Amino acid sequence: MSNESSKITNQHTVWHEPTVFRQDREKLNKHKSVILWFTGLSAAGKSTLAHALEDYLHKQDIRTFVLDGDNIRRGLCKDLGFSDADREENIRRIGEVSKLLLDAGVFVMTAFISPFRKDRQIARELVAPGDFIEIYCKAPLETCEERDPKGLYKKARAGEIPEFTGISSPYEEPENPELVIDTGTKTVDDCVSEIIDYLKQQQIFT
Amino acid sequence: MSNESSKITNQHTVWHEPTVFRQDREKLNKHKSVILWFTGLSAAGKSTLAHALEDYLHKQDIRTFVLDGDNIRRGLCKDLGFSDADREENIRRIGEVSKLLLDAGVFVMTAFISPFRKDRQIARELVAPGDFIEIYCKAPLETCEERDPKGLYKKARAGEIPEFTGISSPYEEPENPELVIDTGTKTVDDCVSEIIDYLKQQQIFT
Repeated sequence: MSNESSKITNQHTVWHEPTVFRQDREKLNKHKSVILWFTGLSAAGKSTLAHALEDYLHKQDIRTFVLDGDNIRRGLCKDLGFSDADREENIRRIGEVSKLLLDAGVFVMTAFISPFRKDRQIARELVAPGDFIEIYCKAPLETCEERDPKGLYKKARAGEIPEFTGISSPYEEPENPELVIDTGTKTVDDCVSEIIDYLKQQQIFT
Repeated sequence: MSNESSKITNQHTVWHEPTVFRQDREKLNKHKSVILWFTGLSAAGKSTLAHALEDYLHKQDIRTFVLDGDNIRRGLCKDLGFSDADREENIRRIGEVSKLLLDAGVFVMTAFISPFRKDRQIARELVAPGDFIEIYCKAPLETCEERDPKGLYKKARAGEIPEFTGISSPYEEPENPELVIDTGTKTVDDCVSEIIDYLKQQQIFT
């Protein structure tokens, strides 16, 4: 696994540099790694789509992972609130973690409102062109508010949640996302199929 | 990939819950995921051992990833310094990221001084017993200071680096680490072999 030169000695210290890189992991996995960055209003369907897509990809032997509120807001970012500054730091950390997972050879999906263009841009610029695929889950505010699966819009309207995206805090629509998915009217299956078609077209997988 | 019930509709919203879990990823990978937490003084050989072990594991088709100063301090934790509070937050985030990688099915190795017992304990408690293997890279301060590959001890002695572990900031030795490796005198090969023996004995891999 190493040789004479890799002894830890005082006179002839050789520091073992990394020998395993992303491309080695991709080769072992027999698939590419990539970041799919889902963005959109609360209840637009980001997490739903990411998990439905993961279900499909896993069956294709693809190493997947979904970052979402459940595993980020209760863990890595549990010290953060929802002020503009905290939202910015939240997305910055998610971008950094996505990059680590990408380097680890994982097909990463992130499902966060990520309302601000500049924060999404920062996450995009952490990785090489082509590694970051922005998917705008587009649904009208009224539709999302009707769905309101967690009752958050209701609370926001009642003033119980300050700085709620779409109500009391802005959502900045992506200007040039790789994909726009109409999650306001289409079924999950149709949305997932659209994403799969795009990924195949881009030769992310075959 | 899903069925009638997973439509995104307003009347009958069904939120697609996660269907892919750590055990599914481990099954796909044909190996377990685990966290090896290397701790010890600067220049004790943590990163060296982690990368040498990774080299070996990758050749056994194990999905590995090493978190170390290179990919954490310049990225996720670039907003943090070296005060006690910042060291604590640094280790907290590394613990959380390790947990995410563990859930993603990755064989994770972390190579940070992580000088404080309570911070290592926090990282340990984030995951289930058996998922966290603490490896104390034990080398005398004098040996590490002689090695000083980056000239950090010299700078610390000159007062140019405040709060340097072992010089002006304490290192709290692990009380019950899973493994103690004598990185002060042994070769990298011998150290790596000891770790591999332990991992096989624990049936982490065969």
